[in-house]
Amino acid sequence: MVETTIGEPGPGQALVRITDMSVDPYMRGRMNDARSYVPPFRVGEVMSGGAVGFVVESKDASLPVGTWVSSNELAWRDYGIADAKFLQPIDLAMAHASRYLGALGMPGLTAFAGLFDIGKFKEGETVFVSSAGGAVGTMVGQLAKLHGGKVIGSVGTPEKAAYLRDELGFDAAFDYHDGIGKQLRAAAPDGIDVYFDNVGGEQLQAAIGALKTYGRIVACGMISQYSEQSGAPTNLTQIVGKRLRMQGFIVFDHNDRMPAFRQEIAAALREGKLKYPETFIDGLENAPQALLDLFGGHHLGKVIVRVAPEGTKPA
Amino acid sequence: MVETTIGEPGPGQALVRITDMSVDPYMRGRMNDARSYVPPFRVGEVMSGGAVGFVVESKDASLPVGTWVSSNELAWRDYGIADAKFLQPIDLAMAHASRYLGALGMPGLTAFAGLFDIGKFKEGETVFVSSAGGAVGTMVGQLAKLHGGKVIGSVGTPEKAAYLRDELGFDAAFDYHDGIGKQLRAAAPDGIDVYFDNVGGEQLQAAIGALKTYGRIVACGMISQYSEQSGAPTNLTQIVGKRLRMQGFIVFDHNDRMPAFRQEIAAALREGKLKYPETFIDGLENAPQALLDLFGGHHLGKVIVRVAPEGTKPA
Repeated sequence: MVETTIGEPGPGQALVRITDMSVDPYMRGRMNDARSYVPPFRVGEVMSGGAVGFVVESKDASLPVGTWVSSNELAWRDYGIADAKFLQPIDLAMAHASRYLGALGMPGLTAFAGLFDIGKFKEGETVFVSSAGGAVGTMVGQLAKLHGGKVIGSVGTPEKAAYLRDELGFDAAFDYHDGIGKQLRAAAPDGIDVYFDNVGGEQLQAAIGALKTYGRIVACGMISQYSEQSGAPTNLTQIVGKRLRMQGFIVFDHNDRMPAFRQEIAAALREGKLKYPETFIDGLENAPQALLDLFGGHHLGKVIVRVAPEGTKPA
Repeated sequence: MVETTIGEPGPGQALVRITDMSVDPYMRGRMNDARSYVPPFRVGEVMSGGAVGFVVESKDASLPVGTWVSSNELAWRDYGIADAKFLQPIDLAMAHASRYLGALGMPGLTAFAGLFDIGKFKEGETVFVSSAGGAVGTMVGQLAKLHGGKVIGSVGTPEKAAYLRDELGFDAAFDYHDGIGKQLRAAAPDGIDVYFDNVGGEQLQAAIGALKTYGRIVACGMISQYSEQSGAPTNLTQIVGKRLRMQGFIVFDHNDRMPAFRQEIAAALREGKLKYPETFIDGLENAPQALLDLFGGHHLGKVIVRVAPEGTKPA
């Protein structure tokens, strides 16, 4: 943590007071010095990521002081300057600010685009989602249920499994530590149509085994393989015989879906048809541990770091 | 080898004298007692597969005696009886009979449907194909060249690599024993757009590393993994970041493409724009060894077993 002088916004820029920021698994990937869809973080520079806040100084007419905005450029700091094009005004009448980091933000759109556009999920199909208690997984499962699917989730504790079944309406949920293939077969004896993969490794292997002919794998993230390359699936040959499709995607390719997505999710949240748990961690100084804890599976739902004290708002 | 009485064709059936039969890698897969897209061969029964021959006795008006036919039901025998629906008349004016087992048959259609329908190959793209000297691979490479692509092939001997470069017009070809990733990078420094996978294992791993963003993997066969489950790729996480699509397919799902495919390939063969090497093995008694040799990489192009002496034809 360093304290530094931030300077003045230039023409077309605004200075934003960050109130909340997101921690996401992809941030770990950006710490590897590897060619990827976004360049790696650089040692000595401020990390970036999703954040919300309000404009406190502006040199852009479209962003008057007091405007609430979200941005993918401004996490991991109290204040930040960005070009207006990287600051999206958000509507606090539609949902409170932190929702734009989760249910109405990148994790929510990831679930929506992955399930429908990549996974081609249809009513009556069976979906298996790993890391089902997380920011993306809780949304995948509930969206599939809302659209007439059967949903199975894997998580890391029996408590999370019970929460998914009892509170979020999953048809089945289990602790992957107790064995994946066996529990998946018990939950879906006829097999699964879509596997939404947040994990890779042995969960991917079990899913390949359970997929029906013409099944789809939505390759969203392989959290178990960000830090180590273990547990590579040995049954890929089934991709041929069962005519499976495995397709990777990045949410930033699907921003055109944002309006349809936000309309549906905001309405479902208001009507109580969809729950989206948020875990708040207070204080920017606790953000590194919050990121590490994503990989330990300690939290449920979307993890948000409160950068400003709760209730901070424009003067 | 047993000699037995075959009986008489029933109504709607015909008795066929087999002249040539195909040996294909999938036959090894059918020897495993596993759920697959076709049921396993059963011990004590005659194996089946692609064959051509002519009708010697008929109880179906559409198949007069002397008609040349191809069938997927009648390999591994000298004579066979089948329902007329499993016997497709073939045109020996278009191409000689064995072509219907290779260039104009299942391996050719596999290359055609895989490259265009699954791989979505487009002019100007770079294709890497493994097992490139085989019945499918030689066709994949030449089709991609005919349609304006750049083509790289991997094979198991330096002689085959030279043949692909010098005779079939591949832009590059190498012996995979000399290291795959390095040779692939040298041949395609900017990466590849499509990987046509006949092999799986370490060649799949190298291809994943070389694929460009939005690249496609045509999962046609994983010959290296039919007998053992080794060399599972450990870099699947790149499927996410590079938004790759890996899709399995079975040629039998693409029979609607047969007319367009046969028209194009027969014309290209006649005009000398396409070469399709055939290796003939004489004698049904040598068919088991011919099948084994597919996996040893001894032969080039399509391997055909002559069941009847060369030149056998309707009386």
